[in-house]
Amino acid sequence: MQVRAKAERIKARMENIAVVLVEPLYPENIGAAARACANFGVRELILVRPKNLDQEKMKAMATKAGLPVLEGMKVYEKLEEALAPFGYVVGTTARLGRQRKVFETIREAAPSIIELSLQNQIALLFGNEKWGLTNEDLYFCHRVVTIPTTEAASLNVSQAVVIILYEIFSQAAEVKLPKPRLATIQELEPMYRLLKETLEAIDYVPHDNVVLWMTTIRRFLSRLDLTAQEVRIIQGFCRNLLWHLGKRDQPHKDREQK
Amino acid sequence: MQVRAKAERIKARMENIAVVLVEPLYPENIGAAARACANFGVRELILVRPKNLDQEKMKAMATKAGLPVLEGMKVYEKLEEALAPFGYVVGTTARLGRQRKVFETIREAAPSIIELSLQNQIALLFGNEKWGLTNEDLYFCHRVVTIPTTEAASLNVSQAVVIILYEIFSQAAEVKLPKPRLATIQELEPMYRLLKETLEAIDYVPHDNVVLWMTTIRRFLSRLDLTAQEVRIIQGFCRNLLWHLGKRDQPHKDREQK
Repeated sequence: MQVRAKAERIKARMENIAVVLVEPLYPENIGAAARACANFGVRELILVRPKNLDQEKMKAMATKAGLPVLEGMKVYEKLEEALAPFGYVVGTTARLGRQRKVFETIREAAPSIIELSLQNQIALLFGNEKWGLTNEDLYFCHRVVTIPTTEAASLNVSQAVVIILYEIFSQAAEVKLPKPRLATIQELEPMYRLLKETLEAIDYVPHDNVVLWMTTIRRFLSRLDLTAQEVRIIQGFCRNLLWHLGKRDQPHKDREQK
Repeated sequence: MQVRAKAERIKARMENIAVVLVEPLYPENIGAAARACANFGVRELILVRPKNLDQEKMKAMATKAGLPVLEGMKVYEKLEEALAPFGYVVGTTARLGRQRKVFETIREAAPSIIELSLQNQIALLFGNEKWGLTNEDLYFCHRVVTIPTTEAASLNVSQAVVIILYEIFSQAAEVKLPKPRLATIQELEPMYRLLKETLEAIDYVPHDNVVLWMTTIRRFLSRLDLTAQEVRIIQGFCRNLLWHLGKRDQPHKDREQK
């Protein structure tokens, strides 16, 4: 229930974000960008002066997930027209020359983009495969961000779209997967008792130093952050072993032995 | 100098990381993965039972940046052989069923992967385009991570490689671009004096309330975090305006007016 509510909140923000590709050369990259949009909850993909709109190539890369984005895609001749309804425009660039005045990675810029997306339509601008965004394109940008890479870097435009949307989505969602419930002391102690019994059965516990020895074993197993299921697996192993040694009745054929 | 040292540190970590693609179907994705490796400082790309090694298609997607990775690529029949030299294996999956026991996003797991990479060879495992990693592949993994997406998500394998490497690289580098130096008070105050003179010249300052009015202007301009260059641009604008109003000598033809 709570996870669902969280997902709704993320969508509300991502819906206000659009991806704008300026003069893209290859239909494959348009399709891949549509797929990236779908993956991170962005609905609107806008093209400015695309060179090639080969439907088949676009659809192949968009896959089923990206089709709705591709079908709703808008195409403009002028960047200014494409940007008309947006309240905030973010440019992306790999070039960090002084002229470009780029002072932020997308990781740094994401929190304020997310905040602005609650009340504003936001356009994320991506340049084409050969030269990226021109200085004229950057005129329209409220801010310009970059993606950190190695020096020899050259990200494909659809890879850049994936990273920018991933970064915004991750920070908007602050996704942390639920960690497993650890076994309680009530679940753990019968296992340790059975383990001690088993080790004693094969004469593997030094008689003069039982506590210290078992403490070592306990520290070792504690490091694993055992779950209840894993505790049952160890117990099952011990029971079967004791039975094979003739020290116990046949173990139950229950879940421990699966 | 310091930036260079930082880059060296990042490389040292990323060099210990390899990307392993299990049964990839399409040569384009192998090429795109090679390009992603190059972008984030990973040198080693390993394939297990690739279906198609079309050189032309791989090279087209790898581009010039990814060629060295492609040329050094190793191919194995068995995953166990491919993984032999690695000390730590990280699986990636989009499926979060209970069976899979996935408790971490790559963002959560990255810090410990980075720590381990200082002393260990690390393999990042990616499944193929149709079914991802099998449960048998996951046997070898020390841990399994996922990439958060919307529910309808389906990331392309090369997009998954891009995101995983970007996340590790970003956290390893903790890249923050240097912020611009703001104008000092010494640089700012002459601008404010000139601005006041200009506004007075066009009768735009209320005589009874100069300080309060100028405070509003100052608050407005302070919000912009002006740099020294921007201060000079505003000063140049004011000087030219005053000159055109006949209130000042001709301004110097210096950098303020560019």
